[in-house]
Amino acid sequence: MSDSVRILGISGSLRAGSFNTALLRAAQGMLPAGAQMTIFDLRPIPLFDADVERLAVPAPVEALRAAIAAANLLLIATPEYNYSISGVLKNAIDWASRPPQSPLDEKPVAIMGAGGRFGTVRAQLHLRQIGLHNSWRTMVDPELHVQRPRTKFDASGQLTDADTRDELLRFMDAVVAWARQWQPARAAAVG
Amino acid sequence: MSDSVRILGISGSLRAGSFNTALLRAAQGMLPAGAQMTIFDLRPIPLFDADVERLAVPAPVEALRAAIAAANLLLIATPEYNYSISGVLKNAIDWASRPPQSPLDEKPVAIMGAGGRFGTVRAQLHLRQIGLHNSWRTMVDPELHVQRPRTKFDASGQLTDADTRDELLRFMDAVVAWARQWQPARAAAVG
Amino acid sequence: MSDSVRILGISGSLRAGSFNTALLRAAQGMLPAGAQMTIFDLRPIPLFDADVERLAVPAPVEALRAAIAAANLLLIATPEYNYSISGVLKNAIDWASRPPQSPLDEKPVAIMGAGGRFGTVRAQLHLRQIGLHNSWRTMVDPELHVQRPRTKFDASGQLTDADTRDELLRFMDAVVAWARQWQPARAAAVG
Amino acid sequence: MSDSVRILGISGSLRAGSFNTALLRAAQGMLPAGAQMTIFDLRPIPLFDADVERLAVPAPVEALRAAIAAANLLLIATPEYNYSISGVLKNAIDWASRPPQSPLDEKPVAIMGAGGRFGTVRAQLHLRQIGLHNSWRTMVDPELHVQRPRTKFDASGQLTDADTRDELLRFMDAVVAWARQWQPARAAAVG
Repeated sequence: MSDSVRILGISGSLRAGSFNTALLRAAQGMLPAGAQMTIFDLRPIPLFDADVERLAVPAPVEALRAAIAAANLLLIATPEYNYSISGVLKNAIDWASRPPQSPLDEKPVAIMGAGGRFGTVRAQLHLRQIGLHNSWRTMVDPELHVQRPRTKFDASGQLTDADTRDELLRFMDAVVAWARQWQPARAAAVG
Repeated sequence: MSDSVRILGISGSLRAGSFNTALLRAAQGMLPAGAQMTIFDLRPIPLFDADVERLAVPAPVEALRAAIAAANLLLIATPEYNYSISGVLKNAIDWASRPPQSPLDEKPVAIMGAGGRFGTVRAQLHLRQIGLHNSWRTMVDPELHVQRPRTKFDASGQLTDADTRDELLRFMDAVVAWARQWQPARAAAVG
Repeated sequence: MSDSVRILGISGSLRAGSFNTALLRAAQGMLPAGAQMTIFDLRPIPLFDADVERLAVPAPVEALRAAIAAANLLLIATPEYNYSISGVLKNAIDWASRPPQSPLDEKPVAIMGAGGRFGTVRAQLHLRQIGLHNSWRTMVDPELHVQRPRTKFDASGQLTDADTRDELLRFMDAVVAWARQWQPARAAAVG
Repeated sequence: MSDSVRILGISGSLRAGSFNTALLRAAQGMLPAGAQMTIFDLRPIPLFDADVERLAVPAPVEALRAAIAAANLLLIATPEYNYSISGVLKNAIDWASRPPQSPLDEKPVAIMGAGGRFGTVRAQLHLRQIGLHNSWRTMVDPELHVQRPRTKFDASGQLTDADTRDELLRFMDAVVAWARQWQPARAAAVG
């Protein structure tokens, strides 16, 4: 359907066994009807270098920008390093936010995270602040902070903790509702 | 002399013509007696990936960690992207701060920056916050924010603006004094 | 007219000669057609105390909450103390944001400021972060930071600097357009 | 003894039954030998007004500044309102940090908090950022975040939760050690 909600998932961690990537995969399996989700792998995104950009925007960066532009909402799963988001994630945002036409501008965004001392609460706060610069429409409530992820995922990366599964289910319902809230407004603004 | 202050300079921008890298070079040319400074190029540092780290810490990362450990003070020149430091710089900090023995821990640090709307004041504030996690001894005063750098450096990257040169000279004097302040304290704590 | 934009101005400084209050007054004199603005004086707002609140919400606090609820947009002029907004302003926000029915929730907000080292850029950033908690619709662009206000206002508090007057004029046009952008959306949501 | 550690405790909440005030009282009862602690009540501190200050600094503000100056360490217990510290606490900091002679400058500080969604982690982070402006020597590790305080204190405000009592005991040991670390350095700097 044309009004299906398209979600783009991004994990701030490159580790194969990353709890944040696993959290995105779990979210993918809990989408309400009328929503779809793809996950973009940040591994091929190079370090931002304006000299490189001037010669030619690297293909993986073009792909990232196109994927963001095509999505109705960006769902970011962030680890917490040094009280903040990972350099990997910030680097992707730096590339994606470049003028003249930033696909991040006014983007509906939802944020979640696994790990850290408090489920990445400090990283999430900082990510919201970064989003201010891009006028993100960031969902405020509910929040999702997965503490002690080692006890909640099994060895294969399946989210096995029942309470966290329930919380994620409610979170994804809210995410899709949040994305829908911005679709008519944008349509009206254009139409 | 054994008590010469060794400064390690890091620029958060990879662009060859970066104003932040140019600012570091200008600082190198204005060191007071008894201080020396090398600049570490972040270009070879890969994106942080804990899987890579587990197999073998990449040689450029080892070199970065060793350079930080050997320095008395870290001088960071940061651009401002999305109200924050660059992903490139955050990525380097993520690698350098890894346990078990983070060379960033309790490091004396000085911060400056060129560009952004206000000379990178927001990026600098956020960098200080990141430094809290590492117990950095970050110099507070003076601050150095180079606004509109295009008007202050010439085409070859020389800092030509007289006022900014004066400011940088005073800044570097304070940086070296700040580094010295931490040397006896550490010695006393050990001795 | 029913669709006139009603702006509530709040200054974070209590000083009679405050540049932030003077900036609000200057803004009042530059409103585009179809907009009106009142300034709420925070002086009678007591320190927040939940014991006091439980007995009876103080009348000035009730007045503040009612004024916010009745406004289409909140225009905050903030000083910068200790890298942040004033305690006076934070205290007013603490009172106004109390449940069960916070008039600050999802409020369209615009932020400006005079003073500080960079025209209050750090205080403004922090105020935006506080606004995240209240799901404020905070205008991002343009920003207004009045540096060295002593040179831009005369002894009677008139904004005399021509460039700043031009900037404020454009800022207020944007503020009113921002407020209008949220009016139909809210009406549609209700109607 | 002359080298006893003098701690000044400040609670950011005025409520008689405040969990943060109760946490300070519990800390008072767990001091290691050679440390003493008094609690300063912020209730009489008026809203900051530079006009008032110019006429005469209010007596309670003078008392606060003197108490800070006389202490070896400031122990702040902060609630979290709107992702930040209370206006009450920020207002006290605004008064105390005023020139020409701010008693907050380079002050050893320890931070804890009770309540909020994550034990005030966001408020604590922001308080550390405010402290950057004052060059506070803020203890980084351990941190103390009391989540769901309603389950950990009894009706009379006694800290009854055994785990939290153990954590507070270790925290206060670290606080006193932190304060001692700064005493010789300062003496040496003077002597």
